[in-house]
Amino acid sequence: MPVAPDAPFLLACRRQPAPTVPVWFQRQAGRSLPEYRALRGEGSILDAIRRPELAVELTLQPVRRYGVDAAILFSDIVVPVAAVGFGVDVVPGTGPVVARPFRGKEDLARLRPLEPETDVPYVIETVAALAGQLDVPLIGLAGAPFTIASYLVEGGPSRTYARTKALMHGEPATWHSLMDALADMAVAFLRAQVAAGASAVQLFDSWAGALSPDDYDQYVLPATRAVFAGLADLGVPRICSGTGTGELLGLLASTGPDVVGVDWRVPLDRAWERIGPDCAIQGNLDPEVCFAPWSVVADHAERVLARAGGRPGHIFNLGHGVLPGTDPAVLERLVDLVHARA
Amino acid sequence: MPVAPDAPFLLACRRQPAPTVPVWFQRQAGRSLPEYRALRGEGSILDAIRRPELAVELTLQPVRRYGVDAAILFSDIVVPVAAVGFGVDVVPGTGPVVARPFRGKEDLARLRPLEPETDVPYVIETVAALAGQLDVPLIGLAGAPFTIASYLVEGGPSRTYARTKALMHGEPATWHSLMDALADMAVAFLRAQVAAGASAVQLFDSWAGALSPDDYDQYVLPATRAVFAGLADLGVPRICSGTGTGELLGLLASTGPDVVGVDWRVPLDRAWERIGPDCAIQGNLDPEVCFAPWSVVADHAERVLARAGGRPGHIFNLGHGVLPGTDPAVLERLVDLVHARA
Repeated sequence: MPVAPDAPFLLACRRQPAPTVPVWFQRQAGRSLPEYRALRGEGSILDAIRRPELAVELTLQPVRRYGVDAAILFSDIVVPVAAVGFGVDVVPGTGPVVARPFRGKEDLARLRPLEPETDVPYVIETVAALAGQLDVPLIGLAGAPFTIASYLVEGGPSRTYARTKALMHGEPATWHSLMDALADMAVAFLRAQVAAGASAVQLFDSWAGALSPDDYDQYVLPATRAVFAGLADLGVPRICSGTGTGELLGLLASTGPDVVGVDWRVPLDRAWERIGPDCAIQGNLDPEVCFAPWSVVADHAERVLARAGGRPGHIFNLGHGVLPGTDPAVLERLVDLVHARA
Repeated sequence: MPVAPDAPFLLACRRQPAPTVPVWFQRQAGRSLPEYRALRGEGSILDAIRRPELAVELTLQPVRRYGVDAAILFSDIVVPVAAVGFGVDVVPGTGPVVARPFRGKEDLARLRPLEPETDVPYVIETVAALAGQLDVPLIGLAGAPFTIASYLVEGGPSRTYARTKALMHGEPATWHSLMDALADMAVAFLRAQVAAGASAVQLFDSWAGALSPDDYDQYVLPATRAVFAGLADLGVPRICSGTGTGELLGLLASTGPDVVGVDWRVPLDRAWERIGPDCAIQGNLDPEVCFAPWSVVADHAERVLARAGGRPGHIFNLGHGVLPGTDPAVLERLVDLVHARA
């Protein structure tokens, strides 16, 4: 069945009044759910993503259990670069691992353009199946150029992004070509998801917060802006999310998203001031708070809501993904708490 | 010889005009120096710290090579908790590791008060020897209660601080007792260093940036304030440093330091606004920038200086420690660049 255009999540993305504050959780389809662990088993997430029937079910599980206002596609930000043969896997407990990291100009040839129909047909199939079953909006997803580049250059997760920044500062022409290639890939990937039925998209720039505002502006912003510009004609809400981005919020908003995600380090009202009046906001409960006694969780959630002040355009979410050991009952109660605040 | 009270570093700490902008580098006594690697060898840093002759030489090496305006004691933030027998070691390549992590109230008994003369006589000996040899101020150091607590509770370095936050939110009475014990220990440790001849002290709250401002205010600020209050009568400059603390700067300044350190994520002028007029500021070059071609390094350094605008009270530094692979020649040129800006 088609999703109603007045679904609370979509209204909030457009900063229109909604009957309730919409809520969903980043990484809601994940290890915190017993039904996820039972179905998914071990092994690389990339293998699971290649099985549409499984990916559909994993996407639906949290919607059923929590009654959240949006579904997020069960996928991974490295799917496109893996699909064009860059040699990326996701190792459980570690994250993305690249066999032959990006070292210089000669590696640009390893990033051919993504052709969604032949490279990621399983994602398109999953999205199409979900669009036929869901009664809440489906959010498609892609990784932002900087965050994907950091995995390709570092060869895996990093604390310092040493090689990434060295490439950026030392070989700016190669860097910008890499960013352009990844921007094109994100656009192609997200357009295919929207064409198959996704009602919104989220661009994950998880690690952009490692950059100074000057460096973000000079080396990253143009490619991120190109991604959002490449989606503008589709008319679906575009979310830009990251962590540790407090100082970048104004710049992120200027890249052209409809919604900016904020982690827990910035109070929501302060964040919204920096983002400005032309974007909706998504966040911003610390996911670690979910391990606290319920009174502490509720108190923190109420403060997020109070800072949003009932202003149209707030989507309640965690400031980062649901942590593996989180008790699903806490997330259920959070949804109820948010929905009770008309 | 005694350090002149008009040393540029001390003037800047007091926000008094100095003939040149003072500069030093966090972790300047470290693996980036070939003479450090030659002398220090492998093994736990805690063993090296227990040898005053070695610790003196490692503290002096960067002062000789770089001509920096301050020496930072070769030490480690876990020295006091290790010295009272909590069972902490520093594993090369990993960081602090705790054999039996702090799990609850019963572990408070394992944190007896620090008696510097008998627990860390080697640190006192090192400081005293340095005070007799240095012609620039010596900065003593300690870890701030939150950052030390995070190691004790997690058992080692962490990305999420899950257990730390769970203890904080779930057992606030135990948490505050832990913070009080660690604050007392930092005060005793720093007072002993000043008594032995340190001209200034730095409290490292490296990981406080993982907290929301609300949580910092409620669970961490009182203990940090107690540390600075416990040093106030000594009359030496007190520096409070951390990373990712952009949203906490006003709160950090309110804990009572004379100088607040800022990483590279916040432009220096914006940071100083948040800190307010009553504190000096230390920072804020991204240490990763040191891997870039010199023109990029110089450009980034000039922007830091431009944002300080020649206002008294700026101490040039990196936003975090010198990274192991850094070329010492770059740091030498940085010192020259900063000193050339009268």
